[in-house]
Amino acid sequence: MDHRKKHIKAGIIGAASLSAGKLLEILVQHPVVEVVTCVSETSPGAPIARCHPQLRGALDLVFDEYDANKLAQCDVVFSCKRPTETFSFIEGLLASGPRFIDLSADYRLKSSDVFQRWYGVKHDHAHLLNDAVYGLPEWHRNGIRNAVLVANPGCYTTASILACAPLLSSGLAAATPIIIDAISGVSGAGRGSKPENQFISVSENVRAYRIGSHQHTPEIEQEVEAIVSGAAQPGFSNQNEAHPPLKHLESRVRVLFVPHVGPYKVGIMANCYLRLAGKTHRITDRELYDIIHTAYAREPFVRVYEPGELPQIEYVTGTNYCDIAATYDPRTETIVVISVIDNLIKGAAGQAVQNMNIMFGVDETTGLL
Amino acid sequence: MDHRKKHIKAGIIGAASLSAGKLLEILVQHPVVEVVTCVSETSPGAPIARCHPQLRGALDLVFDEYDANKLAQCDVVFSCKRPTETFSFIEGLLASGPRFIDLSADYRLKSSDVFQRWYGVKHDHAHLLNDAVYGLPEWHRNGIRNAVLVANPGCYTTASILACAPLLSSGLAAATPIIIDAISGVSGAGRGSKPENQFISVSENVRAYRIGSHQHTPEIEQEVEAIVSGAAQPGFSNQNEAHPPLKHLESRVRVLFVPHVGPYKVGIMANCYLRLAGKTHRITDRELYDIIHTAYAREPFVRVYEPGELPQIEYVTGTNYCDIAATYDPRTETIVVISVIDNLIKGAAGQAVQNMNIMFGVDETTGLL
Amino acid sequence: MDHRKKHIKAGIIGAASLSAGKLLEILVQHPVVEVVTCVSETSPGAPIARCHPQLRGALDLVFDEYDANKLAQCDVVFSCKRPTETFSFIEGLLASGPRFIDLSADYRLKSSDVFQRWYGVKHDHAHLLNDAVYGLPEWHRNGIRNAVLVANPGCYTTASILACAPLLSSGLAAATPIIIDAISGVSGAGRGSKPENQFISVSENVRAYRIGSHQHTPEIEQEVEAIVSGAAQPGFSNQNEAHPPLKHLESRVRVLFVPHVGPYKVGIMANCYLRLAGKTHRITDRELYDIIHTAYAREPFVRVYEPGELPQIEYVTGTNYCDIAATYDPRTETIVVISVIDNLIKGAAGQAVQNMNIMFGVDETTGLL
Amino acid sequence: MDHRKKHIKAGIIGAASLSAGKLLEILVQHPVVEVVTCVSETSPGAPIARCHPQLRGALDLVFDEYDANKLAQCDVVFSCKRPTETFSFIEGLLASGPRFIDLSADYRLKSSDVFQRWYGVKHDHAHLLNDAVYGLPEWHRNGIRNAVLVANPGCYTTASILACAPLLSSGLAAATPIIIDAISGVSGAGRGSKPENQFISVSENVRAYRIGSHQHTPEIEQEVEAIVSGAAQPGFSNQNEAHPPLKHLESRVRVLFVPHVGPYKVGIMANCYLRLAGKTHRITDRELYDIIHTAYAREPFVRVYEPGELPQIEYVTGTNYCDIAATYDPRTETIVVISVIDNLIKGAAGQAVQNMNIMFGVDETTGLL
Repeated sequence: MDHRKKHIKAGIIGAASLSAGKLLEILVQHPVVEVVTCVSETSPGAPIARCHPQLRGALDLVFDEYDANKLAQCDVVFSCKRPTETFSFIEGLLASGPRFIDLSADYRLKSSDVFQRWYGVKHDHAHLLNDAVYGLPEWHRNGIRNAVLVANPGCYTTASILACAPLLSSGLAAATPIIIDAISGVSGAGRGSKPENQFISVSENVRAYRIGSHQHTPEIEQEVEAIVSGAAQPGFSNQNEAHPPLKHLESRVRVLFVPHVGPYKVGIMANCYLRLAGKTHRITDRELYDIIHTAYAREPFVRVYEPGELPQIEYVTGTNYCDIAATYDPRTETIVVISVIDNLIKGAAGQAVQNMNIMFGVDETTGLL
Repeated sequence: MDHRKKHIKAGIIGAASLSAGKLLEILVQHPVVEVVTCVSETSPGAPIARCHPQLRGALDLVFDEYDANKLAQCDVVFSCKRPTETFSFIEGLLASGPRFIDLSADYRLKSSDVFQRWYGVKHDHAHLLNDAVYGLPEWHRNGIRNAVLVANPGCYTTASILACAPLLSSGLAAATPIIIDAISGVSGAGRGSKPENQFISVSENVRAYRIGSHQHTPEIEQEVEAIVSGAAQPGFSNQNEAHPPLKHLESRVRVLFVPHVGPYKVGIMANCYLRLAGKTHRITDRELYDIIHTAYAREPFVRVYEPGELPQIEYVTGTNYCDIAATYDPRTETIVVISVIDNLIKGAAGQAVQNMNIMFGVDETTGLL
Repeated sequence: MDHRKKHIKAGIIGAASLSAGKLLEILVQHPVVEVVTCVSETSPGAPIARCHPQLRGALDLVFDEYDANKLAQCDVVFSCKRPTETFSFIEGLLASGPRFIDLSADYRLKSSDVFQRWYGVKHDHAHLLNDAVYGLPEWHRNGIRNAVLVANPGCYTTASILACAPLLSSGLAAATPIIIDAISGVSGAGRGSKPENQFISVSENVRAYRIGSHQHTPEIEQEVEAIVSGAAQPGFSNQNEAHPPLKHLESRVRVLFVPHVGPYKVGIMANCYLRLAGKTHRITDRELYDIIHTAYAREPFVRVYEPGELPQIEYVTGTNYCDIAATYDPRTETIVVISVIDNLIKGAAGQAVQNMNIMFGVDETTGLL
Repeated sequence: MDHRKKHIKAGIIGAASLSAGKLLEILVQHPVVEVVTCVSETSPGAPIARCHPQLRGALDLVFDEYDANKLAQCDVVFSCKRPTETFSFIEGLLASGPRFIDLSADYRLKSSDVFQRWYGVKHDHAHLLNDAVYGLPEWHRNGIRNAVLVANPGCYTTASILACAPLLSSGLAAATPIIIDAISGVSGAGRGSKPENQFISVSENVRAYRIGSHQHTPEIEQEVEAIVSGAAQPGFSNQNEAHPPLKHLESRVRVLFVPHVGPYKVGIMANCYLRLAGKTHRITDRELYDIIHTAYAREPFVRVYEPGELPQIEYVTGTNYCDIAATYDPRTETIVVISVIDNLIKGAAGQAVQNMNIMFGVDETTGLL
């Protein structure tokens, strides 16, 4: 319909970041979105295409200062700022009208106590946490549709939860403990000029970091709990989503999350090790496949692998897909689920656009295939 | 002493391989070794430095055909052939005099049944398995000293066993199940022109393979069993080594080993997940450090990290070191031990030279620092 | 217009190659193209998405055997075969109806003698060389419109000619000698499992090859000659293109072309060194910019950089752009023109689609932005 | 001789830099050198092995503050500071006794005017420039022997001059103009956390920079002039070196130097394009080889390739070698000479040790093979 052409006006805050660059790449080609303002307080007035060279010729805007009036005219605002950096503007922005998709961690956790424990800072806007919807479409689609504030999931969390959720939801796998050994490309660390992200430090190297203390740990635990409690539901059902068990704000689920950085730019692989729940001791790879495949049968961005096939990071690079394979090791009675995503797309900008599409009633795959 | 100059005559079989190239790099600089023959049946007569350009100017030999007389004059022969490829010459070679260090998997397993199950081939020389000494100096030094046939450990096994052994030996960690999630550079696959090792397939990618079915699994399990049974002992003790429990040739230990290939040339990181044995539920990182540090206090090639420090692959690249750090996650009651090695050095050629030094009474670090 | 939906039926021969994979990525998203057959004689029946994992979920076809009837139903056929491999089918294919875009070098050179000298093989279909149109839209757009057989340019040639042509066409730079020092990612070598393209041989390395003897040399020389003679014309003029000087089939232009392979997947940088023609000894970077910018002012896929800016390979990765910057070194009286392209897109599949768009009267950028 | 054990006391200023790390790697294994102080004013008191992890276990020192007394006890002091940073201490240091090897550009140029033009800063110690010896052993060995102040050459200059010098010295190639198109790994930029050296900016990318304006240009021109004037002489002659033509401090030689950064850590390839001098129009690759090979016949660290062979960067990685190959392109009457070095070794730390060995009468290859 011609009258829908460019009917969503979008603004981006923190527009000089890597994930904002990817978001802009997607939005400039999105048939119904018009980008009206890109806020970068470090370099207002600078051409956006100088910061994001891949946009040269495709986007002629310059970075704006934060302009409340300009943002108020947007239908949706994305923030690509770092944790706690949304606190200064969130209330004003929401009051002025736009729906808000936050790519930071500021509204992902339901408990402000948990936020404070893992981020080391008191949450200034704890009352927003209950209204915020966790923007993982495959498990929170209903909530996302009408949400005013969507908390776009962490990259590691997206890969981890999509991998484990069907086996947890079905009751096959035990919810605790779960070991997740993951590796990410350096773009996960953003564009900041840290010594450890210099080519000289990354190339021909792998390093682990924050073993057991990475801030995506509580996010994974919260979502595991939501899944096993039924608060998060797969698919396209129309029932209203509620989070009854999440009033017990702290999860009893325990995940050991061990992240690594590898010598490549984009992509995450999550290797998830789960135990069987209950008394089962035998399960086939085919049964694992069936459970996961059934959960995601109608999902446009999840591809489940037949037994014997394994995903690789490059299979999803540049896409919004999450690819998943599961196998059972009878010798140690352990389930291994491996998932891969492009951390800047399904792990950030692509998922944000998927959420936007859902929020505005646009076909969910628009701009993403 | 001048009369010891170049007193060890060495031969190499399978000398065109990557690990042989690294072995030659070390041996041409080794003060008491003279390389007398390098066998490569695919390219006899070709200059070795054309195959291994890093030797240009340092080694003027050409590849030889397999010449039993020439090999018989060696004090030590290294084989860098692939599994089962030593079967055609092993008996003749040993009968002719030289001591033998095999870098393949042919003599690492004590059980010919286990060999057959994991390598898919009947072992032609099963009677040699009991005499062969597993060439991990830190745990089999006594056996190595007088060994005629040393089975140089697998790269993944070296990293995994050095990481886990002290905690197993001390009884702190449970021997089964153990999860080991490891990543290797592509040199682990050798020089063969496989499509999956092309730059186009490896760069900007990570892939898992042989989950739970990699052939280093039984090797790790055998050594875990040797350690918990006391058959393998740390350090420099003078007692004769024996393998009493290994007459029960099959280990009851169960390890889930999940290997990956990452986009870099050399280096392995092993992430080992162990549970506490017995009723202990609390242990500090300092206690873990103390156990591991004590076990390796006199080892020249193991560096144990203080709590809070983590090894990275590049810290050991180009060296014979194994660097190890351990941490305890109280939330999931899991011990994480991380170790890194250069897979071509401590995981292959360097360890072979370390074994040779021990066998010939040369200072163990000669040529390796 | 709805009736134009999917109105171009396309076939691909040599569909298992890297460039075919990229071509398929573009075509499956192209709004008016339907892919009807993908020929791969090495693996007929195999799912295409297994060979090209990025197509998983987007293309459900399997590879076909070569089927003359199926190809005859196509409006356009692309060949991604290697040089001389089109000779066996070209006549039959053209007789059966489809227009043909060849990504190999088989129809790029106007002289069969030159072909034989550089490719070492007699040209079986020399009579086709005069009718074939060299598929560089920026300089042969008129010819491409009505062409039955389009010879898609070489990757190095595309980068080199786009860089040098405006300065040659304007008479500012001398046509001979020209030095072009270029570097390509390994995808330029295709998917073949050659030892020199293994990760272990490419990573942390750069190598030069075929200095002065690379087969793109005569292609560059032919096009330089076409440009200086006026046979090739920039832009969108409607005059019929003719090749009068190309009856002197051999160029007197002399180019020294020195290619390198660097440790990355995609992208070419061409560094072109030209001398000033005539008696001029002074020219400013701004004047160079003006000449190049004017030549390409209406080109959708050429971006010319202002003085002081330099293109980088990643600026064009994943795009059909060629980015160009020129600078004059008064100390040595040398012009340096640097251009970058994605060798698989503007250097192969993207340019092929650009040609197809021109041939079928579709907007030239369709599927490419 | 035992009494020579550790008879050279060495100090390093700027010891936290990448080149200092490589220098320390070499020196800790050097049989007659004792490292007595490592100055790093940014982190005095910090363990050196934390900054240079490859030294863990090999060097137990901590970084010192600048201590004139400690440095005065050294026989030799190396500085790895950046240009102009030696000005504050050079006079005091030299007056206190040690011989000095500077790895910066501060004393490489004979003309303080040229220094000021290219480095943008007035030279504070111009009177030292005539006494400083340019530390390229292959062409200035005599001067180095007795030098108090050695200016260790730039990395690009080392590769470029070693490649071109024999053909210039013999009169075969014209001294001007010369085009040098070079590519370096990112370690050439040191350890500074610049955005352009982040992995995300370097990987899968190549960029050119400072075309015609890189500060190694005048250094190359000065040495070309020294070679063609006979002021620099190859080999081991015993005549006293003098620089008569260098009183005309400014070279009339003109070099166009075009540097690039590629996606790898270490190594430089210089592609040098020269014209034949005089009326010669024909020369064979064999003749080129003979000239270059003869010039370097006794050089321990230059390897000249037979016609048909080409060096690759990885052939010299980790070594002090410079590998060189030359070919003549009769079509454009251009000589192409390609050379490769490890920029941190022959281009910095290795060459510095080679100079030290010459200065102290130690075998020139000690610690470097």
